Amino acid sequence: MTDIRQDGFLGGRLRIAQPVRGYRSGADAVMLAAACTAQAGQTVLELGCGAGVASLCLGWRVPGVVLAGIERQPDYAALARDNAQGNGINLSVHEGALEAMPEALRARSFDHVIANPPYFTGGTAGPDAGRAIARQEKTPLELWLDVALKRLKPGGSLSFIQRADRLDGLISALGTRAGGIVILPIAARAGREAGRIILTARKGTRAPLRLLAPFVMHESARHLRDAEDLTAAASAVLRDGAALTSLFAKD
Amino acid sequence: MTDIRQDGFLGGRLRIAQPVRGYRSGADAVMLAAACTAQAGQTVLELGCGAGVASLCLGWRVPGVVLAGIERQPDYAALARDNAQGNGINLSVHEGALEAMPEALRARSFDHVIANPPYFTGGTAGPDAGRAIARQEKTPLELWLDVALKRLKPGGSLSFIQRADRLDGLISALGTRAGGIVILPIAARAGREAGRIILTARKGTRAPLRLLAPFVMHESARHLRDAEDLTAAASAVLRDGAALTSLFAKD
Repeated sequence: MTDIRQDGFLGGRLRIAQPVRGYRSGADAVMLAAACTAQAGQTVLELGCGAGVASLCLGWRVPGVVLAGIERQPDYAALARDNAQGNGINLSVHEGALEAMPEALRARSFDHVIANPPYFTGGTAGPDAGRAIARQEKTPLELWLDVALKRLKPGGSLSFIQRADRLDGLISALGTRAGGIVILPIAARAGREAGRIILTARKGTRAPLRLLAPFVMHESARHLRDAEDLTAAASAVLRDGAALTSLFAKD
Repeated sequence: MTDIRQDGFLGGRLRIAQPVRGYRSGADAVMLAAACTAQAGQTVLELGCGAGVASLCLGWRVPGVVLAGIERQPDYAALARDNAQGNGINLSVHEGALEAMPEALRARSFDHVIANPPYFTGGTAGPDAGRAIARQEKTPLELWLDVALKRLKPGGSLSFIQRADRLDGLISALGTRAGGIVILPIAARAGREAGRIILTARKGTRAPLRLLAPFVMHESARHLRDAEDLTAAASAVLRDGAALTSLFAKD
């Protein structure tokens, strides 16, 4: 991980160092942060925090939130610490694997857990080992949910962003351990099927599931450059750090 | 079940006798029929066919499809037989319970199984026993899926319409016995969360899940009379008997 570049997030409000060729967080991490309903004084754990993009976006939006992250890869954990310091946001980064949670985290429970688990299982590793670990699943999705539920306080909420085609895996893995599932489909354009979903759920409730109207990222029917045709709602989240308000309804 | 009324479906193309005060099929049954990809010569079983609305709408759209239905309540089974005859559509109606499938059906397997299981669990029975049985769950949703999967040929497809808030129950009950899940959210109006979902799946495949763009029923933001503000797509399905084309993509 020799080549590091400073990327701007939230319209340049955050400057975050990421490897040029390794795994790089993008819009999905920002969307994940926007899904979390944490308020000042509440605690949030990010599983697999990488260079810290999601946690730092959340910390920017909600001053006073208490952020912790766990990251398996030492290089990324170090970047996350540097990025937190560089942006003046308090994020305590723990190096470790989900299946061997560090004692400092096992001793705690959280109001919110957020995660953007790897999107690809199997496949070839590619030339960059860091990217390979971040993108290809070392631990099954079920483990991510198990760990999230273990670390949540009763009534606490988890928020995952994931490929839409893994909705069934997420729901099956949750089983009856959480309720109040809210699914936000994310579609590239209006009328398209969802490419991503954000799934939120609360530990220890039986509240019924809700399937929200899709969040649409781009305006035009044809693909221009990503940044040029964001919908107003997507621009508010990605450039201005707004929350995904449809996930904030009272329950 | 003394008071019976003839209702028009598919813009009056079908005349279907239903009890005035008992359980009455409506738009959901028509949507279910529109979701089924059956072709001429293929076999379809409807679980809990009531007065036969879904099967008869399907039979109208796909001449040559081979239709069977099972219905627990003798009065409704008799109505379904009369309705099939009255509309000149071949539907063989079997009286029986899902948990004690008649031998004539147990001996067969089908290309498609469709169902509109009861939407409500528990609650008070109300004055009409027929409506109570149709609307309140006597058999858990899992049983409906179990029976559907048992009666399907390998590679056969099931289509269920159900309350959106039971998506988790449907997915969990399917487990790994079916794949290629396609979820069509049905929203009353654009931008609203889904009230219903149609879930289709194929037996014995591992194809990935797809979460489609919502099907929107009504045009205007405010509720007029149901029939007055259907979207063009909803009108095509409900009044003209069109298929839900987004569910017909090649796989």
